[in-house]
Amino acid sequence: MSATQPIASVFSDWLAAFEAALVSGDKDAVSALFLDDCHWRDLVAFTWNITTLDGKGAIGDMLGECLGHTRPAHFAIDGEAMEMEGLIEGWFTFDTANAHAQGCVRLVDGRAWTLLTAVTELIDFPESTGHNRPFGTVHTAERGRRNWLERQREREARLGHEEQPYCLIVGGGQAGIALAARLKQLDVPTLIVERNARPGDSWRNRYRSLCLHDPVWYDHMPYIRFPDNWPVFTPKDKMGEWLEMYTRVMELDYWSATECKGATYDEAAGKWRVEVEYGPEDQRETRILEPTQLVLATGVLGMPNVPDIPGSADFTGELHHSSAHPGGEGYAGKRCIVLGANNSAHDIAADLWENGADVTMIQRSSTHIVKSDSFRELSLAALYSEEAVDQGLDVDKADMMFAATPFAVMPQLVGDMGAQLRERDADFYQRLEATGFMLDFGADDTGLLMKALRRGGGYYIDVGASELIINGDIKLRANVSIDHIKSESVVLTDGSELPADVIILATGYGSMNEFTAQLISPEVADKVGRCWGMGSDTPKDPGPWEGELRNMWKPTQQAGLWFHSGNLALSRHYSRYLAIQLKARMEGIDTPVYGIPEVQHKR
Amino acid sequence: MSATQPIASVFSDWLAAFEAALVSGDKDAVSALFLDDCHWRDLVAFTWNITTLDGKGAIGDMLGECLGHTRPAHFAIDGEAMEMEGLIEGWFTFDTANAHAQGCVRLVDGRAWTLLTAVTELIDFPESTGHNRPFGTVHTAERGRRNWLERQREREARLGHEEQPYCLIVGGGQAGIALAARLKQLDVPTLIVERNARPGDSWRNRYRSLCLHDPVWYDHMPYIRFPDNWPVFTPKDKMGEWLEMYTRVMELDYWSATECKGATYDEAAGKWRVEVEYGPEDQRETRILEPTQLVLATGVLGMPNVPDIPGSADFTGELHHSSAHPGGEGYAGKRCIVLGANNSAHDIAADLWENGADVTMIQRSSTHIVKSDSFRELSLAALYSEEAVDQGLDVDKADMMFAATPFAVMPQLVGDMGAQLRERDADFYQRLEATGFMLDFGADDTGLLMKALRRGGGYYIDVGASELIINGDIKLRANVSIDHIKSESVVLTDGSELPADVIILATGYGSMNEFTAQLISPEVADKVGRCWGMGSDTPKDPGPWEGELRNMWKPTQQAGLWFHSGNLALSRHYSRYLAIQLKARMEGIDTPVYGIPEVQHKR
Repeated sequence: MSATQPIASVFSDWLAAFEAALVSGDKDAVSALFLDDCHWRDLVAFTWNITTLDGKGAIGDMLGECLGHTRPAHFAIDGEAMEMEGLIEGWFTFDTANAHAQGCVRLVDGRAWTLLTAVTELIDFPESTGHNRPFGTVHTAERGRRNWLERQREREARLGHEEQPYCLIVGGGQAGIALAARLKQLDVPTLIVERNARPGDSWRNRYRSLCLHDPVWYDHMPYIRFPDNWPVFTPKDKMGEWLEMYTRVMELDYWSATECKGATYDEAAGKWRVEVEYGPEDQRETRILEPTQLVLATGVLGMPNVPDIPGSADFTGELHHSSAHPGGEGYAGKRCIVLGANNSAHDIAADLWENGADVTMIQRSSTHIVKSDSFRELSLAALYSEEAVDQGLDVDKADMMFAATPFAVMPQLVGDMGAQLRERDADFYQRLEATGFMLDFGADDTGLLMKALRRGGGYYIDVGASELIINGDIKLRANVSIDHIKSESVVLTDGSELPADVIILATGYGSMNEFTAQLISPEVADKVGRCWGMGSDTPKDPGPWEGELRNMWKPTQQAGLWFHSGNLALSRHYSRYLAIQLKARMEGIDTPVYGIPEVQHKR
Repeated sequence: MSATQPIASVFSDWLAAFEAALVSGDKDAVSALFLDDCHWRDLVAFTWNITTLDGKGAIGDMLGECLGHTRPAHFAIDGEAMEMEGLIEGWFTFDTANAHAQGCVRLVDGRAWTLLTAVTELIDFPESTGHNRPFGTVHTAERGRRNWLERQREREARLGHEEQPYCLIVGGGQAGIALAARLKQLDVPTLIVERNARPGDSWRNRYRSLCLHDPVWYDHMPYIRFPDNWPVFTPKDKMGEWLEMYTRVMELDYWSATECKGATYDEAAGKWRVEVEYGPEDQRETRILEPTQLVLATGVLGMPNVPDIPGSADFTGELHHSSAHPGGEGYAGKRCIVLGANNSAHDIAADLWENGADVTMIQRSSTHIVKSDSFRELSLAALYSEEAVDQGLDVDKADMMFAATPFAVMPQLVGDMGAQLRERDADFYQRLEATGFMLDFGADDTGLLMKALRRGGGYYIDVGASELIINGDIKLRANVSIDHIKSESVVLTDGSELPADVIILATGYGSMNEFTAQLISPEVADKVGRCWGMGSDTPKDPGPWEGELRNMWKPTQQAGLWFHSGNLALSRHYSRYLAIQLKARMEGIDTPVYGIPEVQHKR
């Protein structure tokens, strides 16, 4: 490459050489196309897994196992290559033996620093959308034919009764719904079971002041975009309505008011036996479902983490975990202690104050606080904003752009978010710290995004509660915890005592995998190990480095068991890959999985 | 203009000259920019009306009245000009005194053959969408604030009770819903009243085999597009679900199971007094609503046209109009006579046959038959199809492209559709005519589109029934009518007699305006005159030429009374102009209407 070679030809040269090296199976030639510091992220295209290969050695190992059956071909440039600060980014499409796929490479000095390869659709089993959409009717006259509604009702009457779903999704929030919608377009018989009464209730049932903390552009579901009049921050009940509508118009098979009591896997039959209980309260019925694939979509947060505080039993007031908090109505005048200082703690404390309660927050360790506008403008706006929409950036493309950065280099690209925030909102942070509030900006100053991916928490997106702490409306006790509880008070670890009518434990959640232990067995839970986090060796995300979120949207150590969750954005994007993996298995496509990591952490 | 002048500069020269002539108020200069055979279609930009000015004289008259207050300015080219067969088409935007607007000119030899000017939005009252979307929450903590759901419930409790709607829409089908959705984004307090139990029931309640006859790409509602998995031809129940969902997520104020009993206009107060009856069947309540604007959105078809056939009273079987037809179930083995040969007649005859009835269709006059695929490919595909979507053609842009052709020149652009169809489907038409079926292709061989615009009927989009006629499954009696009815038979005008258990009068509908006569008064109905049709002097659309659909989406001779209807496509597009007209009036913007036509036909 000469110093003056045009960007487009740097990229096209690289892509041609990459294709030639792959097609000829020349691993050394492939290796020569990468920097020493290189990262290849594969989403189900080469590995039938979601995995990142860090370094040439890992790449070579993967190709040794996968290149033969992947048979990549038909590479084509997709759009114009771009240069940013010496980095050339180019997009392309290609085919594997079974799938259409796409990729993104970022080149430094003509060699790949990062590479993304991602499956787009199965060649023989495309989605029934666009040119493949159903016709809706048959243009003929024919005796005895049934109309759409009748066929829908027949399917509903059959599925879970005469016909077993191929895929059972436990949990009918946004994650389960998004996945079921994808599977529907792939003609995979799928049933969602959800304990709440209606789709959307997982939002409706939360405290009344709740709005989404992520903005609308980041929150779309697959297939149906929020309309242009949708509020920036969706109020919880509006979100509930949308999910219920979505479930209906996408014709998802959804059993509400259904509880999952237990599941066992029959290795020989390759099927699950899942016991569910459903029906009206006074005449619950039990039914055994036998899906081939079991997807747990019960929320990224897992089971409530309820610390066993000495003296709890003696407390004469009300004590509950934040997940059971009904909202602040009815707490006017009550002395409320909120233990914890992350999102839920702040939201609940503010809601209680709005309702006239006397509120004290107990902060045990530091929290990352970011003002909502700052998070939106600094972290999301480039990909997800009205401006991005104006520039023609579709949300699906934005998702791919975000996915194109392997987690290993994300901290580097995010940069020193802490410094940026401290400068931008200097006065705010000074006033907050003056109250004694313990601030952090993430382990390496990378802020909220990395904290969310590494540990799924440890932050508050400020939508108003911080000002209440600053002005003393919410009282703060920082760097202490509750030592023990007495009948009408809590005693802190510094020996001080606070009178209390209500104690709310905003003490977070365990791993998603704890639900596995409860639903299936502790043995299976330990076999698949911890979910979420990537082994960054930062607080609450112990190493070793694993490179991708543990167990999410990809094969686990337990055949037929999958985990699907995340905020709306992650549920939207990764449901695509999970759906394709499930469809491929249903159709008997050979899906040799490369690199399921060994379990490092059990829960 | 030289013969070799580039297309782009022909257009930009014309636009610059047009702007200069308008700004200087030089009507002669404007006139010089048009061909003698010219047509200026204005959608609420210059005329606060929907009107087409045919010829230089009409254009000069309009400008004489409207140019002073319109004050057009800020003309800017919008996209690339294109040439087709010597015709140069260019798009532009501009502003009037009160509104942003857009336009499209088609030039021949550098002068305008057709011009469209159309309002886009009111400058001071844009829609609350995109950059103006609501925030959804307030990022602060505040005691006593209500959440989204509580505010929604308060509004529902208030509207129609303590607070009068500014706009009352009678009829909650797709037209009423689309308009209410537009008005919602303009903050115009609007209430829909609908006699059916649920939004969407106007589709659900129809015969079971019904699917939309127009394809999905043509049928989108405003704001929320059908997802990519939506069937080409929407089954009726699926359409019902969509409209119900749409009403909910767009938060429209919709009173279902509500009947409109009568309306009178108080000229002095400038308000309507509308009596509605609502509530559960056993405890109906009457309420008086006092909207400023009354929109009748009760369907383009108006009241059922029920001919008074001698002997009807003696008939011992079942006799009903097609609009009351419950579907073919329960008619197995019955001898059914269907009087009429347009869309409803064919659909009902096929449905009866599918259900095992013995069916005879009586065709009184010729019908235009077009196979569904042919209609879709020849008439709609360029603007509304998967291919158009692939080419990046958004439905809103497609609507503008369709609107850019004034009705006066549409037959010329549609061309000889009859000849094209006869060639394409020659065998089909020959076999159909061999049964004695009387075919036509519209008054001037322009086919379905012009027939629909001129008279709202007179055709059948073949989705299967024609083959039943061809093969004799549906018996045909053509070029006759029913002379009289006996207790168990019908006697035709040729003297023959057919035994009958059931008679279905698929005899069409009257003008929308007949509902006006019933709801308001015959005097007001006569004052506003006939709806739909454009004075083409073709069957069922008597002249003189009026150039636009009568009374649709624009001011009528009765202050505060508006008509809104059409298929999904027309409801979608023209609801935009009607909403802007209503908003302008609510805000007290001066809206001098140019050219409300004199009433030529009363019903």
